[in-house]
Amino acid sequence: ASIPLAEFEKIESTLSITVVGASGDLAKKKIFPALFALFYEDCLPEDFSVFGYARTKLTDEELRNMISQTLTCRIDKKENCEDKMDQFLKRCFYQSGQYNSEEHFAELDSKLKEKEAGKLSNRLFYLSIPPNIFVDVVRCASLRASSANGWTRVIVEKPFGRDAESSGDLTRSFKKYLTEDQIFRIDHYLGKELVENLSVLRFSNLVFEPLWSRNYIRNVQFIFSEDFGTEGRGGYFDNYGIIRDIMQNHLLQILALFAMETPVSLDAEDIRNEKVKVLRSMKPLLLEDVIVGQYKGHSKGGKSYPAYTDDPTVPKGSLTPTFAAAALFINNARWDGVPFLMKAGKALHTKRAEIRVQFRHVPGNLFKRNFGTDLDKATNELVLRVQPDEAIYLRINNKVPGLGMRLDRSDLNLLYRARYPREIPDAYERLLLDAIEGERRLFIRSDELDAAWALFTPLLRDLEEKKIVPELYPYGSRGPVGAHYLAAKYNVRWGDLSGEDS
Amino acid sequence: ASIPLAEFEKIESTLSITVVGASGDLAKKKIFPALFALFYEDCLPEDFSVFGYARTKLTDEELRNMISQTLTCRIDKKENCEDKMDQFLKRCFYQSGQYNSEEHFAELDSKLKEKEAGKLSNRLFYLSIPPNIFVDVVRCASLRASSANGWTRVIVEKPFGRDAESSGDLTRSFKKYLTEDQIFRIDHYLGKELVENLSVLRFSNLVFEPLWSRNYIRNVQFIFSEDFGTEGRGGYFDNYGIIRDIMQNHLLQILALFAMETPVSLDAEDIRNEKVKVLRSMKPLLLEDVIVGQYKGHSKGGKSYPAYTDDPTVPKGSLTPTFAAAALFINNARWDGVPFLMKAGKALHTKRAEIRVQFRHVPGNLFKRNFGTDLDKATNELVLRVQPDEAIYLRINNKVPGLGMRLDRSDLNLLYRARYPREIPDAYERLLLDAIEGERRLFIRSDELDAAWALFTPLLRDLEEKKIVPELYPYGSRGPVGAHYLAAKYNVRWGDLSGEDS
Amino acid sequence: ASIPLAEFEKIESTLSITVVGASGDLAKKKIFPALFALFYEDCLPEDFSVFGYARTKLTDEELRNMISQTLTCRIDKKENCEDKMDQFLKRCFYQSGQYNSEEHFAELDSKLKEKEAGKLSNRLFYLSIPPNIFVDVVRCASLRASSANGWTRVIVEKPFGRDAESSGDLTRSFKKYLTEDQIFRIDHYLGKELVENLSVLRFSNLVFEPLWSRNYIRNVQFIFSEDFGTEGRGGYFDNYGIIRDIMQNHLLQILALFAMETPVSLDAEDIRNEKVKVLRSMKPLLLEDVIVGQYKGHSKGGKSYPAYTDDPTVPKGSLTPTFAAAALFINNARWDGVPFLMKAGKALHTKRAEIRVQFRHVPGNLFKRNFGTDLDKATNELVLRVQPDEAIYLRINNKVPGLGMRLDRSDLNLLYRARYPREIPDAYERLLLDAIEGERRLFIRSDELDAAWALFTPLLRDLEEKKIVPELYPYGSRGPVGAHYLAAKYNVRWGDLSGEDS
Amino acid sequence: ASIPLAEFEKIESTLSITVVGASGDLAKKKIFPALFALFYEDCLPEDFSVFGYARTKLTDEELRNMISQTLTCRIDKKENCEDKMDQFLKRCFYQSGQYNSEEHFAELDSKLKEKEAGKLSNRLFYLSIPPNIFVDVVRCASLRASSANGWTRVIVEKPFGRDAESSGDLTRSFKKYLTEDQIFRIDHYLGKELVENLSVLRFSNLVFEPLWSRNYIRNVQFIFSEDFGTEGRGGYFDNYGIIRDIMQNHLLQILALFAMETPVSLDAEDIRNEKVKVLRSMKPLLLEDVIVGQYKGHSKGGKSYPAYTDDPTVPKGSLTPTFAAAALFINNARWDGVPFLMKAGKALHTKRAEIRVQFRHVPGNLFKRNFGTDLDKATNELVLRVQPDEAIYLRINNKVPGLGMRLDRSDLNLLYRARYPREIPDAYERLLLDAIEGERRLFIRSDELDAAWALFTPLLRDLEEKKIVPELYPYGSRGPVGAHYLAAKYNVRWGDLSGEDS
Repeated sequence: ASIPLAEFEKIESTLSITVVGASGDLAKKKIFPALFALFYEDCLPEDFSVFGYARTKLTDEELRNMISQTLTCRIDKKENCEDKMDQFLKRCFYQSGQYNSEEHFAELDSKLKEKEAGKLSNRLFYLSIPPNIFVDVVRCASLRASSANGWTRVIVEKPFGRDAESSGDLTRSFKKYLTEDQIFRIDHYLGKELVENLSVLRFSNLVFEPLWSRNYIRNVQFIFSEDFGTEGRGGYFDNYGIIRDIMQNHLLQILALFAMETPVSLDAEDIRNEKVKVLRSMKPLLLEDVIVGQYKGHSKGGKSYPAYTDDPTVPKGSLTPTFAAAALFINNARWDGVPFLMKAGKALHTKRAEIRVQFRHVPGNLFKRNFGTDLDKATNELVLRVQPDEAIYLRINNKVPGLGMRLDRSDLNLLYRARYPREIPDAYERLLLDAIEGERRLFIRSDELDAAWALFTPLLRDLEEKKIVPELYPYGSRGPVGAHYLAAKYNVRWGDLSGEDS
Repeated sequence: ASIPLAEFEKIESTLSITVVGASGDLAKKKIFPALFALFYEDCLPEDFSVFGYARTKLTDEELRNMISQTLTCRIDKKENCEDKMDQFLKRCFYQSGQYNSEEHFAELDSKLKEKEAGKLSNRLFYLSIPPNIFVDVVRCASLRASSANGWTRVIVEKPFGRDAESSGDLTRSFKKYLTEDQIFRIDHYLGKELVENLSVLRFSNLVFEPLWSRNYIRNVQFIFSEDFGTEGRGGYFDNYGIIRDIMQNHLLQILALFAMETPVSLDAEDIRNEKVKVLRSMKPLLLEDVIVGQYKGHSKGGKSYPAYTDDPTVPKGSLTPTFAAAALFINNARWDGVPFLMKAGKALHTKRAEIRVQFRHVPGNLFKRNFGTDLDKATNELVLRVQPDEAIYLRINNKVPGLGMRLDRSDLNLLYRARYPREIPDAYERLLLDAIEGERRLFIRSDELDAAWALFTPLLRDLEEKKIVPELYPYGSRGPVGAHYLAAKYNVRWGDLSGEDS
Repeated sequence: ASIPLAEFEKIESTLSITVVGASGDLAKKKIFPALFALFYEDCLPEDFSVFGYARTKLTDEELRNMISQTLTCRIDKKENCEDKMDQFLKRCFYQSGQYNSEEHFAELDSKLKEKEAGKLSNRLFYLSIPPNIFVDVVRCASLRASSANGWTRVIVEKPFGRDAESSGDLTRSFKKYLTEDQIFRIDHYLGKELVENLSVLRFSNLVFEPLWSRNYIRNVQFIFSEDFGTEGRGGYFDNYGIIRDIMQNHLLQILALFAMETPVSLDAEDIRNEKVKVLRSMKPLLLEDVIVGQYKGHSKGGKSYPAYTDDPTVPKGSLTPTFAAAALFINNARWDGVPFLMKAGKALHTKRAEIRVQFRHVPGNLFKRNFGTDLDKATNELVLRVQPDEAIYLRINNKVPGLGMRLDRSDLNLLYRARYPREIPDAYERLLLDAIEGERRLFIRSDELDAAWALFTPLLRDLEEKKIVPELYPYGSRGPVGAHYLAAKYNVRWGDLSGEDS
Repeated sequence: ASIPLAEFEKIESTLSITVVGASGDLAKKKIFPALFALFYEDCLPEDFSVFGYARTKLTDEELRNMISQTLTCRIDKKENCEDKMDQFLKRCFYQSGQYNSEEHFAELDSKLKEKEAGKLSNRLFYLSIPPNIFVDVVRCASLRASSANGWTRVIVEKPFGRDAESSGDLTRSFKKYLTEDQIFRIDHYLGKELVENLSVLRFSNLVFEPLWSRNYIRNVQFIFSEDFGTEGRGGYFDNYGIIRDIMQNHLLQILALFAMETPVSLDAEDIRNEKVKVLRSMKPLLLEDVIVGQYKGHSKGGKSYPAYTDDPTVPKGSLTPTFAAAALFINNARWDGVPFLMKAGKALHTKRAEIRVQFRHVPGNLFKRNFGTDLDKATNELVLRVQPDEAIYLRINNKVPGLGMRLDRSDLNLLYRARYPREIPDAYERLLLDAIEGERRLFIRSDELDAAWALFTPLLRDLEEKKIVPELYPYGSRGPVGAHYLAAKYNVRWGDLSGEDS
């Protein structure tokens, strides 16, 4: 680990990680593999155990079998992989129980104590379970399975409520059993490599410093698209919709990191203070600054793709948006008047997550005539591609080599894959490690969450009360055209749909 | 051609290009091939002739033979190359004569008239001859071989004198026979692709605009190095030395383009006005801001390399510098206090020409601890590599992918060869075409030349009067260490000698 | 009042202000007059009472007599003054008691209840007492005299401890009885008109925005001087010294307001968050960046002035500084490298408090020759004079009218007295009103106080442990010359000692 | 004089100033008094003579009588005034002659030679005559009365033609007899104290540097108004109109000085180079960006004021504008998009000439609610009042002293009269002295004049060809309301018509 655990802690203390909801998909695909990766990289303390907890009855061995199917070793360090896997699996244990049974958590506590063998014990609970049982588990774990002499931390993942009110309720319920310090709300997008890099880029490079404001930036775009639909798993999604699922958390978190003022230090509290300031400076979203869409069935090349409402797990006639675009504004000195556009959708033509920063036109441009009238094409653009293929590129105008004076746009380009051939760790690894180490930078504080919901709740209520019908768009298309009209309203052109990029 | 010749001109007028000094090296290696390349690219008017003029007696055929040996076709357009060469060579003619004989030039005039056949005739003279006969040729050509009804232009190449006085004399002599409009002083570095691109980069990209000043730039370096010595051809060089040969013209011209204010238009006069302003804002060079070097013999890997003074064409005990480094300052609002460093040398370890812009440190850097104490390594740098392998790259700090927070420098990179696979035209092509088309942007005006000499003349006089002994450096080395002390005096570190680049 | 009290509150609630330490000087000179002024201006709620509390035995009438001697009416509203005074005095009552007697405070509670007559009651305690009894009073008041149904607030004035440790102890003791919300730590300098105006100037005037950073500001000076010494009242002072008395609180608070980033709103918490950030960005003071002085006796014009140590209340051989100058640095992006100088002293030649902002030199100044070599005289300076005679002026260079080109410095000037002929309210009025209205902007939060002590405590410890001997300066002089050497070390020239201002 | 004449020149050379058109109004009211003031201030060389030349027959004595009636002494140096007047008058001589008679100028030459007595002679001709005889006088003076051994200079005042063509003709005619160096085209507005000060303010004060661009300036206004009409002297005016009389020269010159880039030095050629660049960067004026007006008769307070067309010297039905407002744009990097508004008129309610710089709104203003919705009132404004009562003031927002937070606009103010009690020299003094000393900074070069006419000529042609009828406005009013609509089109509010200033 980059921040080495103190020698003392390594020897004398013990860590147990309990994955609550161990038999679920996320646990299998992401959490256990991430824990193994951390172990493989020597990032876990010497004395640790991993517990699965779920209602299903399993033996330790059955859990280990289940886990072992998804473990992989880092591409670049293949050796001893099998040994490492064996060692890891030996540290995995299982406890079955109801999620609301204090008694069963007391049983878990006994098992934990057994492994801890009287040492200073730190306990991490990862809640990989549906939100309706969050509070039950927190209650039981806190009352019956807290560490007596070390720390106890709980990782939860979204959804954190459906609106300001339900989120507030959830927080208040948590706080009956946990302090703010013990709650680690994950937004796994904050663990992405390029999102982590955002602060480094901004604050350690002088060349970006003067550019990062309304004086130079014309608009900023946060774009998330998936090239598949709900595909038979729309039950959960339909209750939330794309705005709650992607925008209000992932994209808004990235926006806050992008737009925040320089923090006084890189400590978690200082960064989160600045993020809250950005969120509080924003205008709540209005219905007129949002458009929503839903994908419909589509046939292409002999293959046919289903509509969202064809998904059997989705209620007939559902109005839940599978696509949304929104224009947001930050009413502070740095960003006054700059549109921050968001766009998120399922079943689109591509899979992508990126930040696009479009710069202003050069005033009094000497070269205007060389570009013809489409000045939008001639402005600089900084693109941070979060996935796939992490990259940073800055589009600049340059002269085409050759006689005469013809201008062209080229990219000053940094493709991670080319520069850093090692595998990039999964976001879950980073986040788990941070939670173990008590580093809260990438987790969401209660007041951040409140501020985020405050922005989106009026809009969500409006959408639902007015039964706004989403604009249909074909599965695999570029989404509803309404997104263009929304952009045009603020003199923006989506950067991901220009000819060169698509 | 990018700027198409008017239809009228194509049909009714005729162009003759007379290469005076046709049997010389430059003519053979650069000028005739460049003329052929222009012809091959359809950039010459329909009706043109090329004349060689020199003292040697040659037939047209002999000239053609000589020329044909250096003609090549563009890599990416090989077809019909042979045909094109034949067509070109048929337009080449020869006239022998003395350089100071008006009579011989009158003979040339007759031949020219014959080819022009009464059409509107434009005449371009390229003076590929030693400077001591410039004025003779200008006189003869002007008095006896000027066009009667079209334009007459004369291209000259450096050296334009040895100091302010001799340069002034030369200009005054030219002006007896030619107007300013007729004189095209070539600095072939101005025809380099990346030098041409400099104005495009600066003035058509908003992202560079705020950076281009003392507020963000810590220093700028202009670096020229050759990996060979005079090698038996030091006779001309010894009379001039590296400062006159490279710095006072090539590097200073690039500096002026780099540092000038935004011109009111891209017209030649407007750009040259701004370049003159920069030169006039500079402090004349002092001896204490310059160091000079000379290469000495060196053996490496069983091979031995000669000293400069081993060159039989170089006078024994010559003090002529083959290397120089200098710190210059522009005393205006944009650049006050920013060191502009120049370095030029022969017989160094590498062949390279580049501009390096080192940006300031980030104030109050949050990430300071991540870099250790060597803050010079952590600043941003913009590099414009003029040759070899034209490229632009911007060094930025970013997070190394992986767990933990480790910073690293990467390049946002644009390598011309990768982006523009076509062959990049030689500087001479561009300059010849511009002279034909009357585009003066890349040629040096008299007042520019005066201002350039005003900066360097006191230094050159000092060096010679005080018989300053150059610091010896081994052939093939990185040059004299004095260059580092000079840089250190102004808190600069040469960017080309850091570990990563060498 | 500008922020009108809700109608409801005016009618139904009652306010009592208890001045603990009612017989002291501050109470008589500042607090009661300020309360009267608020009453006179209709800023107090309709139903209010003022209680004096002290150990002395007094009747209500005696208290009223005592108070009435210092009441004055605003210059510009003389009418009905006598009536108003009578009305005010009728609302004043007295209760004697020990400061550590819960019983006596219970008696006070009874009296308060009597006046409150069952209405919603808000209670404000003003602790005008020595710091050693702060905690006793807070305990007694909190336990026995808190409001049962309204708010209870306590105003305290410095000293808040002598160093980080004692200040932390005090805060912890307060927090046993009071929440952060109930504690109003006064720094009466924050109530000064020009200090209040500082945020308005910075954040509502675009012209100051680009200037407010290291790019334009060369240094900032915070200057406080008194033209009298301790004059027989040095007992308290000697225990603290000028650094604790003026710098660590008044000047540092003004510095924080001056230098803070734009807050997200003008709410108290947002402003105080930003102030804490500035304080946390500062380097703790080092001995080498401070000089201390002490005044010595002096005779002038037949009159003789005593030395500090001539004061009979001062211990013989006291090393307590009566003068100090310090250089502070804020290690953030805005202020990196800009010296913030402070200077505070007693028994100097003038009485003054001001902020002086010295701007950088014009780069590449065209007019350099017109100023001769003393470039320090030619830079712009913004002066905010806090007292006496509040004024803002901006020194600019302009051409002296007349033939020829001679430059001169003039002031763009705003003298409050000329522009706003009304009397400016005393700082205590503003602060009392804010405390009544729950406006915390001008009060110091615990974490601010901690950060402030963290900066000064190492220095104070050093001074005392190393028994640093202060440089002596004559009573009525401009202070020790050491202050000039300290300034010179950072290329600063004190703005208040140039010829034109003294 | 500030720039002392060389000792040599004082002793050995002689200066004669010939006022051609000596009996005219301008000569009597401005030129002779200005010459006397220069003499009084010891700014003239020791050996000088003043000649009057006109068609009227006068003796030297009659000229002296005529002159003496308008001579006055500087307020602050009254002593010896009578003596000085006598000395001055003794140096004044008269020569009558026709303006187109070479013979008469030869007679003048004889008289000049007589006074020059064989010394090195410098001759200045001031052409105080109608423009139709400019060329005649220049021809005669140049051919017959040029100095043989010193310099000969000619001062002319507008009008310099009526449009690009006639101005070009005039320049070409001048250049037949004079070099550019000998022509001194006066724009007496350039001699005004505050106009002179403009460059000092801009370039010697760092605080203005960042503000002087589109990033901070919302618009700039150049306002000229007279409170009287043509009053029986409209003959000349009617042929030109307010646009040619005031805008195309006075206001445009000031605009160019205001907006130019930093010159490389303060030398005349460098400043004039930059002014030409500004003019060349401007878009020619379109009819739609201009409104014209003409005053009509009006009765007020029992007094009646005539219409422009009531003036007997004005042709019936004249469409000549006596008022115009225009919006101009500078298409360069500094000013792209910033409206530069001009307004000039006769017979308005006030007499005034000023530059008003309105700054942008504060982005994300924290204080917005404190200003209500009229944000135009809350922005900063810099006013340079050229006449009457020279002053500079900067309007800033500040807090109104007192409890509560109420904002207000105050002025940081510099009133020349208060700061510099000495009389400010007349513009003519400065200009005459500069012409004598060869200082060309305040005179207009031929290419400047061409560029100025290029901007206005299309508009003037349009106005005349389309017979645009001016909007009538009452004598003594604030001018036509059309000026407001023009301003509103570019989101501007005239600064001189807000409540506070009128």
